[in-house]
Amino acid sequence: MQTEIPSGSSAFDPVGNFQWSPAEKKVARRAFDRALQAELQAVMVEAKRRAEKMRRPCEVWDLEQYLTKRRTQIDRQFDYRYSVLIMVFGILLRDGKLTEQDLDGMSEDKLASIRRFDET
Amino acid sequence: MQTEIPSGSSAFDPVGNFQWSPAEKKVARRAFDRALQAELQAVMVEAKRRAEKMRRPCEVWDLEQYLTKRRTQIDRQFDYRYSVLIMVFGILLRDGKLTEQDLDGMSEDKLASIRRFDET
Repeated sequence: MQTEIPSGSSAFDPVGNFQWSPAEKKVARRAFDRALQAELQAVMVEAKRRAEKMRRPCEVWDLEQYLTKRRTQIDRQFDYRYSVLIMVFGILLRDGKLTEQDLDGMSEDKLASIRRFDET
Repeated sequence: MQTEIPSGSSAFDPVGNFQWSPAEKKVARRAFDRALQAELQAVMVEAKRRAEKMRRPCEVWDLEQYLTKRRTQIDRQFDYRYSVLIMVFGILLRDGKLTEQDLDGMSEDKLASIRRFDET
């Protein structure tokens, strides 16, 4: 079934059956990796903070639970498949985990789709 | 099927269909909790050490894996059912995680069964 394009947004593709040029793939990979590294860095800092302030032995399982939860979230959020990448970037942009500068070099129609997630 | 009692060890029950007096249950619980707390304390110390020396963000998952592995081991090892407690204490004693003094107050036949694990 063909998805109907909303009137007034001729170039809008909500998730994207886009073609990615080699240059765009390079931009995408760099932006993705940068956001992922920043996310992992934040988990590491938080894990160090939690470990440092542990006092009672049973609290180690709270730390384990925190790490498992964050790993699951990150695995779900950082999905580098071109079929979902517009959505992934849209959510990362909305959540302030990457900037439009990080996406510099992508086509306008992709950027338009990515920005749409800011409105959701 | 009746398990054959080895000759020369008339009172030996390898795992134990023992009766536990209230006083023995108290000794058992205290010894068990002490060994468990020591084990958790060791995990906490090691988790703090690992967290402190993390440098690369991806290492947080090594910490998570370590904690999950230790939790699984501890869950399996520290099983407070009277049907398996002789074996549990036997292994803890063998591994130096509790001493005979911790078991002071238990009947001789139980202690004999517990000590047998030192020979396995």
